[in-house]
Amino acid sequence: MEIQLVTSLDEAKRFIIDCFKAVGTQTEYAETLADNLIEADYRGHLSHGMNRIENYIHDIVHQLLDPNAYPEIEKETVATALVNGNNGLGAVVGKYCMDLALKKAKDVGIGFVTAHGSNHYGMAGMYALQALKDSIIGLSFTNTSPVVVPTRAKDAAIGTNPLSIGAPGLNGDSVVLDMATTTVALGKLEINKRKGIPIPEGWALNERGEMETDPDIGLKASRLLPLGGAEITGGYKGYGLGLMGEILTGILSGSKYGPDIPVWNGPEKEVADLAQTFIAIDPKVFAPGFEDRLSNLMDHLRHMEPKDPAKPILVAGDVEKKHMEQVQLQGGICYVKDQHDTNKVLAEKLKVAPMISTALETHSAS
Amino acid sequence: MEIQLVTSLDEAKRFIIDCFKAVGTQTEYAETLADNLIEADYRGHLSHGMNRIENYIHDIVHQLLDPNAYPEIEKETVATALVNGNNGLGAVVGKYCMDLALKKAKDVGIGFVTAHGSNHYGMAGMYALQALKDSIIGLSFTNTSPVVVPTRAKDAAIGTNPLSIGAPGLNGDSVVLDMATTTVALGKLEINKRKGIPIPEGWALNERGEMETDPDIGLKASRLLPLGGAEITGGYKGYGLGLMGEILTGILSGSKYGPDIPVWNGPEKEVADLAQTFIAIDPKVFAPGFEDRLSNLMDHLRHMEPKDPAKPILVAGDVEKKHMEQVQLQGGICYVKDQHDTNKVLAEKLKVAPMISTALETHSAS
Repeated sequence: MEIQLVTSLDEAKRFIIDCFKAVGTQTEYAETLADNLIEADYRGHLSHGMNRIENYIHDIVHQLLDPNAYPEIEKETVATALVNGNNGLGAVVGKYCMDLALKKAKDVGIGFVTAHGSNHYGMAGMYALQALKDSIIGLSFTNTSPVVVPTRAKDAAIGTNPLSIGAPGLNGDSVVLDMATTTVALGKLEINKRKGIPIPEGWALNERGEMETDPDIGLKASRLLPLGGAEITGGYKGYGLGLMGEILTGILSGSKYGPDIPVWNGPEKEVADLAQTFIAIDPKVFAPGFEDRLSNLMDHLRHMEPKDPAKPILVAGDVEKKHMEQVQLQGGICYVKDQHDTNKVLAEKLKVAPMISTALETHSAS
Repeated sequence: MEIQLVTSLDEAKRFIIDCFKAVGTQTEYAETLADNLIEADYRGHLSHGMNRIENYIHDIVHQLLDPNAYPEIEKETVATALVNGNNGLGAVVGKYCMDLALKKAKDVGIGFVTAHGSNHYGMAGMYALQALKDSIIGLSFTNTSPVVVPTRAKDAAIGTNPLSIGAPGLNGDSVVLDMATTTVALGKLEINKRKGIPIPEGWALNERGEMETDPDIGLKASRLLPLGGAEITGGYKGYGLGLMGEILTGILSGSKYGPDIPVWNGPEKEVADLAQTFIAIDPKVFAPGFEDRLSNLMDHLRHMEPKDPAKPILVAGDVEKKHMEQVQLQGGICYVKDQHDTNKVLAEKLKVAPMISTALETHSAS
């Protein structure tokens, strides 16, 4: 049996910071990016964490983004702002914009900030979490490359356009919803392919625009179905939600949108010019007792009788909380072998200290 | 063959106004309610229009709502407001709140208004349409009676919690998304029952919490599935969206929420105390050219190659536009016989002039 390696959160961040400093990123921004990616890994969204450092490095070394660009406010009211990301790191643009939205929410109850000229900003939930630190409701939206097929169409035209919302309950509890507006992300097709099992109907289409159950064909076609799947099971609603995401980001901020967004690390070598939107809402300007009511509702939901006793009812964010507990218990994140191999190559290429991991201690059941 | 009757929009409104005045509603509010219900019928959302007058009348005559109550602002910033609907008509509360949100959006770019103490407010899209008249992006959310089963549960706990967004394109064109966060509304089960055809998997559960395909059993169980259906096809996302709707309405405004919301016209004879939220966003405080970009994207989508040439790709709101054209063409709305029968009984009972309809002129194909 292969030994599983575990990497502490600090060491994983150290490695990312060193890599990005090595390609010319100033320390503060490299730290912001590392915090963003490791938060994703910590929460179990491994597709949005360390897994993506090569993509970001690719953008920097090909000068498709400027890792030291600072976002600028172009237009502003007491409650809103239009920000130019100046083609900087998405994580930096995102953190800046949610900070700005939070400041406005503390002043006038709500802050609504949209940025164009941005890049991939990590998991959408990152910015909901940023708002939660201040006990403020946070929402975030981003547009993405067009891999989703509008209902009745054969080809893709809009992105998976994720949305997130975080809302505070009592004692640090919370709802954190972070979802693409598709049935699944492309990553789930990869997992089924690796396991050699078919994908359910409703996930993806093939190149002829037909429902596909072979994950390999689905991946090559890159035509995801909106949440709801086929038209008869409400797929047009997921398509509508994806369109809502594009309206609140690209259409509002003046970035690229819909079919014009390039594929990340695709052959075009084009600047992404993505858009992201950040909303902060201070519950204190509304009815007192927000956190009590939300905790009361979460309690009700979590204590409902499950259909399968082994599968309790969850609230958005509970899967992530379980993963974080596991990471704490084992002293860090267990990356797959492939990630460790990638990191070794990167460490040599960028001349940074290799990431140090230790063998995971497993407790015998006897 | 039965003669189809057509009722002009004005006459349908006149009848509703007379009915509500007869049960003690002041003229202005009766007009607001009539505008709301007939807009739904005009757009083809017949479940949310004239079809519901008995429910509203029931609430008034049983003193479950006060048809003359005026909403009041309880708390306010330049960009936000908490409104007490004072148990008035939902259509009146909704119109008042979106007006307030629009005023704030014109002042500071965004207005966010939430109301508690409200009642059923008609179709959520009504308030998106209200914002569109001012070329402003409008969103609205409402909580509703608990008929949706959280993923993994057997019983219902949250509402269908519809959301709407309207965004202006060029020359009066627009996106108007108006959707429940379930695969379908209960009304669709009724239609399948009437047609005697099964319902697809993913619409509803039976009383044992199992996927149901018999519309009759589904209707009796009153357990809808969130958008996405089963867990493997993303149902937990629809559940998360329903929860988001509850957070932005009931939890924020301090109304009833989740499992505590009574069934409309149910046996409890309880005040609804619903919550609704209204967001107005003025595109003018963001990047210039909003309407051009949105029309450009709509053009792209509508001109994509359809899988079935008979079914062109649509944008949210296009089905409604087609229905409105049809209503204009035929000179009014064709209500089903059952509605005409109900109206006759109502006219007698409330001593108002019966609704006048005319035979629909059909053009022969020869």
